[in-house]
Amino acid sequence: MTVYKAPLEDYKFLFHEVFNVVDVCKRLGYDQVDQELIDIMTEEWSQFVTDVWKPSNIDGDKFGSQLKDGAVISAPGFKEAWKQTVESGWLQAVCKEEHGGMGLPLFFRNAMDEPAISCNMAISVVAALSLGVYDLIIKHASQEIIDRYAIPVSSGEWCGTMCLTEPHCGTDLGLIKTKATPQDDGSFLITGTKIFITAGDHDLSDNIVHMVLAKLPDAPEGSRGISLFLVPKFLDDGDGLSNKINGTSVSGIEEKMGLHGSPTCVLNFDSSKGWLMGEAHTGMAKMFEMMNRERLATGMMGLGLGEIAYQNALAWSLERSQGRDLRGMKDLDAPADNILVHPDVRRMLLKAKVNCEGTRALGTWIGILLDEMNKGDGECKENANALIALLTPVMKAYSTDIGCQSASLSIQVMGGAGYCTEYGVEQFYRDVRIAPIWEGTNGIQALDLVGRKVTQNFGKNLRHLLWPLLEFIEENREVDGMVEFNKPLHQSVKGLQQLTLLLMAEGAGNPHFLAAGATDYCTYFGNTMLAYLWARMAKVCLAAKSAGTSTDFHDAKLASASVFFAEIHPDNAGLVAKIMAGHKHLMAYPEAAF
Amino acid sequence: MTVYKAPLEDYKFLFHEVFNVVDVCKRLGYDQVDQELIDIMTEEWSQFVTDVWKPSNIDGDKFGSQLKDGAVISAPGFKEAWKQTVESGWLQAVCKEEHGGMGLPLFFRNAMDEPAISCNMAISVVAALSLGVYDLIIKHASQEIIDRYAIPVSSGEWCGTMCLTEPHCGTDLGLIKTKATPQDDGSFLITGTKIFITAGDHDLSDNIVHMVLAKLPDAPEGSRGISLFLVPKFLDDGDGLSNKINGTSVSGIEEKMGLHGSPTCVLNFDSSKGWLMGEAHTGMAKMFEMMNRERLATGMMGLGLGEIAYQNALAWSLERSQGRDLRGMKDLDAPADNILVHPDVRRMLLKAKVNCEGTRALGTWIGILLDEMNKGDGECKENANALIALLTPVMKAYSTDIGCQSASLSIQVMGGAGYCTEYGVEQFYRDVRIAPIWEGTNGIQALDLVGRKVTQNFGKNLRHLLWPLLEFIEENREVDGMVEFNKPLHQSVKGLQQLTLLLMAEGAGNPHFLAAGATDYCTYFGNTMLAYLWARMAKVCLAAKSAGTSTDFHDAKLASASVFFAEIHPDNAGLVAKIMAGHKHLMAYPEAAF
Repeated sequence: MTVYKAPLEDYKFLFHEVFNVVDVCKRLGYDQVDQELIDIMTEEWSQFVTDVWKPSNIDGDKFGSQLKDGAVISAPGFKEAWKQTVESGWLQAVCKEEHGGMGLPLFFRNAMDEPAISCNMAISVVAALSLGVYDLIIKHASQEIIDRYAIPVSSGEWCGTMCLTEPHCGTDLGLIKTKATPQDDGSFLITGTKIFITAGDHDLSDNIVHMVLAKLPDAPEGSRGISLFLVPKFLDDGDGLSNKINGTSVSGIEEKMGLHGSPTCVLNFDSSKGWLMGEAHTGMAKMFEMMNRERLATGMMGLGLGEIAYQNALAWSLERSQGRDLRGMKDLDAPADNILVHPDVRRMLLKAKVNCEGTRALGTWIGILLDEMNKGDGECKENANALIALLTPVMKAYSTDIGCQSASLSIQVMGGAGYCTEYGVEQFYRDVRIAPIWEGTNGIQALDLVGRKVTQNFGKNLRHLLWPLLEFIEENREVDGMVEFNKPLHQSVKGLQQLTLLLMAEGAGNPHFLAAGATDYCTYFGNTMLAYLWARMAKVCLAAKSAGTSTDFHDAKLASASVFFAEIHPDNAGLVAKIMAGHKHLMAYPEAAF
Repeated sequence: MTVYKAPLEDYKFLFHEVFNVVDVCKRLGYDQVDQELIDIMTEEWSQFVTDVWKPSNIDGDKFGSQLKDGAVISAPGFKEAWKQTVESGWLQAVCKEEHGGMGLPLFFRNAMDEPAISCNMAISVVAALSLGVYDLIIKHASQEIIDRYAIPVSSGEWCGTMCLTEPHCGTDLGLIKTKATPQDDGSFLITGTKIFITAGDHDLSDNIVHMVLAKLPDAPEGSRGISLFLVPKFLDDGDGLSNKINGTSVSGIEEKMGLHGSPTCVLNFDSSKGWLMGEAHTGMAKMFEMMNRERLATGMMGLGLGEIAYQNALAWSLERSQGRDLRGMKDLDAPADNILVHPDVRRMLLKAKVNCEGTRALGTWIGILLDEMNKGDGECKENANALIALLTPVMKAYSTDIGCQSASLSIQVMGGAGYCTEYGVEQFYRDVRIAPIWEGTNGIQALDLVGRKVTQNFGKNLRHLLWPLLEFIEENREVDGMVEFNKPLHQSVKGLQQLTLLLMAEGAGNPHFLAAGATDYCTYFGNTMLAYLWARMAKVCLAAKSAGTSTDFHDAKLASASVFFAEIHPDNAGLVAKIMAGHKHLMAYPEAAF
């Protein structure tokens, strides 16, 4: 059995001391939100997933989902956990009140994601997909569809999926073959095969609502000819759900390295009745609204699994004595000292911990920007749009890469125990490895960042990001205690500007240069955003110290900031050199010699 | 089913063009060894493991070993594969002729390890352990034991294990509790529990010969009071093996993340009869002779699994078309271009490939040094001793770290397919993760390097390593085409000298400083050794070009060298900063805040 304690104190710090979310909420019209409400909700949701979701996580891994007689049977405990979730009404926290929701701000959804993923990633993705489908429905579906689907999908009574990938195409969706044939009643018949469909079928809910990319008969070639359809597993026969499946069938579920509790389905649509979401041929843009939200949720997976891996490695470490403090025995009565006396053990644990604390700050920041994008106006909205455009691929790629790293460090701390199933951490290592892959591989995120988001609107996005950041650096140049953080931050921000210019200048003539450096640029970008957030967090702590209001928590957070700048931030030095090395060594490599 | 083709051409290049092994062999008295013999043996062994070991590798993962009625049953196909291996006589290739061996040079064993690990790591470790036990027996056992055990252990008719870890201690073996009680006949009765015993029991062989660390009644405290014993599973009753087990029993096998084909046993010794190996209380040193050999074999695991992961990612890539070349369509007749047009895909594949090529060179170099240590005299032996002392921890840690990285890159190239069991690569990712842990975690290797090997003999080891290296750099300062490689090599070597001085100076007063930087120093060290080997390989290729004898292979190798210096070597910049950051941020971190 694994241990887990939701990082509530860290969230309180981020919400109320770093980002002042209550002020933001007031400004954006979330009048009912106050500090107490946020703290209670965060705590209660964490408790809920700990009590209801976590107990089945190991069985999810051990038994997985099973395909029996054409239907997917969930892992033991999943059905009951989901039933309680639906009944609790929790999934509707950020949904509109008119759909039975609580209308809470969106940043709360990111904060909900973390403990949910830590406790049971396989269930958490069902929730994330269902909420993604809810968002699409209320924005793009006809009123009739909204009236029928919005409430059950938001509550989790019905679940959602996204159906993009086909056997011959994943990244390159322009190649899809699934067809949609218009019917006289305004509906469409969808036919085709989709693969890698997460939770494509299961027995958690009465119905499953698929968001399917398909091509109309007159569709233009490529990705501009793709439309989005809502295709339910069961149709409504006017008097509730029919018991006849709407032409969908599961022909297989993948055996995977991890995330066994989550069925990854081969899903066939055979003249399945569906409805067009919005205009014809605009499916990619709509799917990307959902995709972008799922990318943020995927970023949170790096955090959620990194965090629980760390917590279990720490729990193990606190019980483990081995060797002696190199500066002299610590525990004279024991045959060995606790392993926290060893600098290398501390290095591994703290790197994992600080990875989590940093991406938690990034996830919280982005959550607030989602609210500003959603409810803000004028400059506030424009600014949020720009930052989210940039930070979505960074959150997805950077956070999942370091999530894998945190899980690996946690295993390493535990030695052989880390590799053994009994201690639970190896599951997190396997589960988290999907996160850099799905919802667009991290390589695709990097290309999205450098090839689209940075250049969009003549570089305006980046100016929105960097101007306040440079201002922050300037403000803190002389602030007591801030030099240690501000100086390396400044250096990285200058580096980011120079690298961006280099990539744009060289990339204009040769896109291979740009693409060769994309992944390292994205990591550099993430590292620099984290440097900024760590400096901001440090500033809050230093201010609390000056004001005499600081606690042990603030001291620890300052110590974490130092760990970030000593152990993680220096990677930027190597990344600069790699980006500047360009593309020739890659593109000139003789193909026959691979 | 996975694909695999042993890298024979690369071995020929390393053997005959880079390291001139035939000359070395002649010098050391291996008179029978010529180029043809080495090439044929390498090829035939590779073919043997591909034909005989590889087919059961997936079943090894899928079904694993099973504990039934107190005995371990091997995965399907393993028994037959091992039987053929014993019959073939292959395992004795590097064993003495008097024990039925072929007396081949030791470097050949490293070269044998790689394809063996690629094809079936679970079986390869049985071979590695058995040969390790053989080495110990012929060096330290009584003639009576040698006569009885050397031949069956070298052939694989009997297998070997090493029994160190106990539930409460792994890294800190001074704490072991297993007891050895002297008997009147000169033997000992061993009692205790050992855990994490790889291939501690199985049905591949008639007998299993355990090397067990235990304490005699009068033993000094700690690691200076440990003795090494040979304890067979079955005793010889004078007329062959008795059918009564010698007090050993298996009370469990671990469920693990990977390497399911290899049973990791909890092994109980209950008054098991055994014999002292060498003097009393000298067990740690003897175990370390075997351990050091296994550390090199573990280093080869990073290579072997990285290589086969890469090969399968490449095979997949060559079949996959997705998106278009950013400089314009390549394949006009197809709906998409092959993914090798994408710089980021090339970056991932080539990084994995070059990781493998580099550590293959390192493994080959160390193999030759083993021969020089074994058969050389005077300065040759002293030099080899010094280099092996330094390079053993580096090979173990660096090669296994980047082996994990190569497997991860290979998965990432394949996207969702990389995560699915069907394509086989995810198994390599899980299997290789044990390598940074066992045979001393990589953190322990790093401490061994910086805390012992570098300081030994007043730094003499490092002088043995660096003097010829600096000479090489000097020689190539003006050589055409070498600047690209020589310059960054020079920079890293200078950095290594400075970092070493810093760690020694600061570490003398504060060992925490030294220990905090150990892991990053070890990586820096490995990276610098690789830079040297890449420069050496580049020089050979450039010379072949000048002489007009170069082939496509040489061009590809030069291209690989460029990839190393552009994509891997720059990490050293970040590592320097991390090492210089010292220990305070780690040791001052408040314990309650972990």
